[in-house]
Amino acid sequence: MKKIGIIGTGLIGGSYGLALKQLGGYRIYAADASRKHLNLALNAGLADEELTPDLYAEMDGIILSVPVDVLPRLAVEVLERTSRNTWIFDTGSIKSNLASFLSKHAERKRFVLSHPIAGTEYSGPGAAKTGLFEGKINIICNPGESDKNILKEVIDLHEKLGMTNHFLDAQEHDEHIAYVSHLSHISSFLLGKTVMDVESDEKNIFLMAGSGFASTVRLAKSSPDTWTPIFLENKTALLKVMRQYLQNLNYFASLLEEKKNEEIHTLLKEINKIGKIIDGIR
Amino acid sequence: MKKIGIIGTGLIGGSYGLALKQLGGYRIYAADASRKHLNLALNAGLADEELTPDLYAEMDGIILSVPVDVLPRLAVEVLERTSRNTWIFDTGSIKSNLASFLSKHAERKRFVLSHPIAGTEYSGPGAAKTGLFEGKINIICNPGESDKNILKEVIDLHEKLGMTNHFLDAQEHDEHIAYVSHLSHISSFLLGKTVMDVESDEKNIFLMAGSGFASTVRLAKSSPDTWTPIFLENKTALLKVMRQYLQNLNYFASLLEEKKNEEIHTLLKEINKIGKIIDGIR
Repeated sequence: MKKIGIIGTGLIGGSYGLALKQLGGYRIYAADASRKHLNLALNAGLADEELTPDLYAEMDGIILSVPVDVLPRLAVEVLERTSRNTWIFDTGSIKSNLASFLSKHAERKRFVLSHPIAGTEYSGPGAAKTGLFEGKINIICNPGESDKNILKEVIDLHEKLGMTNHFLDAQEHDEHIAYVSHLSHISSFLLGKTVMDVESDEKNIFLMAGSGFASTVRLAKSSPDTWTPIFLENKTALLKVMRQYLQNLNYFASLLEEKKNEEIHTLLKEINKIGKIIDGIR
Repeated sequence: MKKIGIIGTGLIGGSYGLALKQLGGYRIYAADASRKHLNLALNAGLADEELTPDLYAEMDGIILSVPVDVLPRLAVEVLERTSRNTWIFDTGSIKSNLASFLSKHAERKRFVLSHPIAGTEYSGPGAAKTGLFEGKINIICNPGESDKNILKEVIDLHEKLGMTNHFLDAQEHDEHIAYVSHLSHISSFLLGKTVMDVESDEKNIFLMAGSGFASTVRLAKSSPDTWTPIFLENKTALLKVMRQYLQNLNYFASLLEEKKNEEIHTLLKEINKIGKIIDGIR
């Protein structure tokens, strides 16, 4: 029976607990900054026992699934309280900062920078679900900085959960993820704000909003605790991506202003090509 | 056996055909500007027979489900070729233009301005599906301009399909729908463009894009034939809504630029309230 520690029992951490318990052969120890969340997680069977810092050293592996602004300090604390065989990985949505923070640490090799592409708009232990990772992608950053055996354990664990591992440079990860995840969250949040600003009478939103609206604003339900630090840490890449998005919106507005029928049609048809890409997303 | 004509056998028109045939008691006559689409519709059983203009007068009712730029001319043609008992309704996503175009027509009372809130990002007869309207909202505009008996027939038909009818002024409809549908389509299209502009290597999009990205850009698959005329006809309302959206995006970018941690957290938390509204959308 392997002992796995999970720090942070929200959507992602809690789902690791569920998935590992379903696999069998793992005893799950959990910690959470919120006592209420920890109790929920223990009661829901996402974990077997509470994880206290004095138990870190007994763990075979520890998963850090906390907001990205808390990660660096926690990563160092866990590295320093664990033995030479314990693997540790985080699940954060942004990597460069943590990568450079850890780069000089003597125990860096036991750490794996990992990012399961498996979020939903929900958060907390109640959002954890079985099968969340099944068929999804896991991105591992700067694999060369981790010990080969440690890396293999983390890779194997994700494969057991039904995931495919891919490897990327941390900087590259953060730049790409700004386009395909962070910008989606921003557009969704601000779309939500735009509608709420004017549609003070909720009944009208209800009446006329269809599944298309629900789809584009569903990420506006995402947790501010999770996303505020992500946006701030990926500030530079995000501002660049937002400028490009704003430019495209302004360009479209000018086509509309000038009633450029054919240009709009051609543009939309060109964008339609993204359909075959989206359809490939699991 | 009632005879119903459907002009335009795409997602919406085709789904009316399917739904009415499933109800029973209707014989469906269909027309489409595309011979290929019409044949597909007939072969798929969305309709029983081809509808030619000489048959308009035999119909009990005619549904116009064509792009909004084609609607006004077609509405007049159909009104003028039908008898005094034939009801006609359109399914367009925008209403003011058609409302004012028809307002002086002698046969206006046989026309109902109708908009089923039931689209998907797919188009054409192949996108038609049973149950598309079940549990959804149907908006009827300017009901006072339609004959009472005609109106009742159209209301009853939508109720039979499992829909709830609501009534709105055409101008109000167009202003609200700019927020809760048209802006979502624009944000989705331009989000798609922003990512395609830079992520020329599709493999990277595949790798890192999760369900959140797919959700926010799925409307970018929508038909340019349907949406170009909608955007152009709702130009004024849309430009206003887009300006507000751009303002919100710029505000967020400035918070990010200045690393306003608390302000961003507070803003996202406020926007989270939209969650309970979205969850009410069917």
